[in-house]
Amino acid sequence: MPRLIVLYSTPEDTDAFDAHYRDVHSSIVARYPNLRDVRIVKPAGVAGRPSPFHLMAEMRFDTATDLDDALASEAGAASAKDLRNFAGGGVTMFIAPDEADA
Amino acid sequence: MPRLIVLYSTPEDTDAFDAHYRDVHSSIVARYPNLRDVRIVKPAGVAGRPSPFHLMAEMRFDTATDLDDALASEAGAASAKDLRNFAGGGVTMFIAPDEADA
Repeated sequence: MPRLIVLYSTPEDTDAFDAHYRDVHSSIVARYPNLRDVRIVKPAGVAGRPSPFHLMAEMRFDTATDLDDALASEAGAASAKDLRNFAGGGVTMFIAPDEADA
Repeated sequence: MPRLIVLYSTPEDTDAFDAHYRDVHSSIVARYPNLRDVRIVKPAGVAGRPSPFHLMAEMRFDTATDLDDALASEAGAASAKDLRNFAGGGVTMFIAPDEADA
């Protein structure tokens, strides 16, 4: 299943970030059409180094077309627009297709 | 299941990178003790932007202790040392614990 993966760099105020994500952003993401599931994790660092990311969100879809449609949907636009309200630390976003043959 | 996630920034020579990963690095990773499975994907960009990463490797373990032990193992050290042989584009690494309650 293809995934939309969003990595949030650590913001200045992590409590405010968490509250906004929980109370506002997650309900926008939940409106993505044909969203199969969402996994939210709080990354930890490796070998004593802090993680560069505060939160990782993985949104799964049945097909790449469903994923593209979600990004192009009203919820996709609202989600992108909402980033400016809480993701001041920066956002890195990419699509993880189904496993490569590598 | 906790995951060790490694994001490889796009290198100058992607063919050389892929060959080294396939022929050398993957067999080092396969030696991690108690490694449950490895998922390799080639990220794609969102909204017409290129992906910042060329390859994402996700290594799953049954427990956080198993993951830490793998990093501290001979294979973990060999893997870290091998990065200099092919990962000139840069590497971002973090641990994704089991899902948060967020």
